[in-house]
Amino acid sequence: MNEIKIFCPATIANLNCGFDVLGLCLEGIGDEMIIRKATEKGLRITKITGADLPLDVEKNVAGVAALAIVNAINPDCGFEIEIHKKIKAGSGIGSSSASAAGVVFGINELLGKPFTRHELVDFAMKGEALASGCEHADNVAPCVLGGFTLVRGYNPLDVIKIQSPSELYAVVLHPQIEVKTSDSRAVLPNTVALKDAITQWGNLGGFIAGLYTGNYSLLGRSLQDVVIEPYRQKLIPGFENVKNAALDAGALGSGISGAGPSIFALCKGQDKAEKVAYAMSSSYLEVGIAFDMHISKINDEGVKII
Amino acid sequence: MNEIKIFCPATIANLNCGFDVLGLCLEGIGDEMIIRKATEKGLRITKITGADLPLDVEKNVAGVAALAIVNAINPDCGFEIEIHKKIKAGSGIGSSSASAAGVVFGINELLGKPFTRHELVDFAMKGEALASGCEHADNVAPCVLGGFTLVRGYNPLDVIKIQSPSELYAVVLHPQIEVKTSDSRAVLPNTVALKDAITQWGNLGGFIAGLYTGNYSLLGRSLQDVVIEPYRQKLIPGFENVKNAALDAGALGSGISGAGPSIFALCKGQDKAEKVAYAMSSSYLEVGIAFDMHISKINDEGVKII
Repeated sequence: MNEIKIFCPATIANLNCGFDVLGLCLEGIGDEMIIRKATEKGLRITKITGADLPLDVEKNVAGVAALAIVNAINPDCGFEIEIHKKIKAGSGIGSSSASAAGVVFGINELLGKPFTRHELVDFAMKGEALASGCEHADNVAPCVLGGFTLVRGYNPLDVIKIQSPSELYAVVLHPQIEVKTSDSRAVLPNTVALKDAITQWGNLGGFIAGLYTGNYSLLGRSLQDVVIEPYRQKLIPGFENVKNAALDAGALGSGISGAGPSIFALCKGQDKAEKVAYAMSSSYLEVGIAFDMHISKINDEGVKII
Repeated sequence: MNEIKIFCPATIANLNCGFDVLGLCLEGIGDEMIIRKATEKGLRITKITGADLPLDVEKNVAGVAALAIVNAINPDCGFEIEIHKKIKAGSGIGSSSASAAGVVFGINELLGKPFTRHELVDFAMKGEALASGCEHADNVAPCVLGGFTLVRGYNPLDVIKIQSPSELYAVVLHPQIEVKTSDSRAVLPNTVALKDAITQWGNLGGFIAGLYTGNYSLLGRSLQDVVIEPYRQKLIPGFENVKNAALDAGALGSGISGAGPSIFALCKGQDKAEKVAYAMSSSYLEVGIAFDMHISKINDEGVKII
């Protein structure tokens, strides 16, 4: 195997109650990459479509992640990387993570899988750090592992894949405005009221329990955010109305995807997801900002060869 | 059935990563109560042994909890309550919760179980409020339901029983000093650094995942407290040394039980629990404060008729 084509899925991080720790993997929305072995050592990004990104390996998220895995192995060959972006930068559904996860997965496959998927998360995180300014795994983890993931902690990185029920669907509304992760971090306070932190970790615990037990009602009750959403929602025009529209249409919960501006909802079953997507679209038409809609099952596989 | 004798187990709340939300139920350590139907309506506390507590129903934790359930039903009979305390007040292993949970369980049994165990938690919480100054369910929930419980939130009360693996043991060292819950609340700050809150909810998520999957290593990695322990450990002489002794002897984790002063450790298997108990005892002998030791399986049943 000298060349593979890879699907690098979009992801939703935070999920209301799990700021910086929870994420899930989407199906049908993602970048494509082609990774090719080369006889000459080193890394070359040979083609980028769909986005205006640097070809310079050290300035490119995929390049930096690729360097991390290649430097760990020092293989006898080099790699050529083609990046075909479909996920827009700054959309809040893990654009940079998809590039970082895709390239480390692809190189690992071409080298005969010296690393487990869990081990790949660490390499992918190095690429993600170039985009967000610090090492975060809340988007790369679900992209690499699929399903729902919890980043328990760093030092050392400890990522857990969480079992989830089969009828969960995610709806994503992506307003065509860019919210930089650095900006959406800047609006956050350095401290949080202890009583709000307790509410938040109660909900996170409930959400994890809901995933393991397939308790959709509990998932819905737990999908609340009293810590981050009050600050970040101001950056997203129309947020409150779209969220209410999703809940009124029967979504289990709704909130900000990652750092925004995308707005997500979780739903039980495809029919409900379609109703919720329609309600969110209808609400957002009144805002006057162009947007994309996605409906997706939870992608339990993660990044894969296509 | 006109009279029943009840075992009201001790409990451990908080469990490091779950301040105000997590709790577990102990076996073999607990109060006993006798509840008797009386033809005359109303409630009478007829006997208290093992502690100097008020017989006045409205000033007694069990009395207040009993009033809550009796007022909700208005039965054609009254009840006599005997309380035989074995759990010392202010020990940090749910003394007041045991009284509150025991009495509502007993009255519910004598009335033919009009309420589910989940519903009883709400009544028991009313009694607990008399002791702690506010309504908390983190001890009453595991006492009523058994096993591990998560209080996801209040308004309305939402308690989830969490599945747990069968080989878990708890070790409790109870130094014979009293730490009032109000004092141990007073040392806590009103705010917490966002980064510490994230660490804490990452660990809580990991702990819940560890319980569902029976992953003891994950349970151990998650049993950390970066929010509360730094403040409360100062109230407990010898805490740090006992905790380190427990960890060195192979405990999965160790920390403050509830509001203290009891110090708990969780262990995999009885042999390990005995080793850990010995190490904790040896360490505490140097402190010069008398103490009790308990080793207990997790009690999955909760309060029960004996």
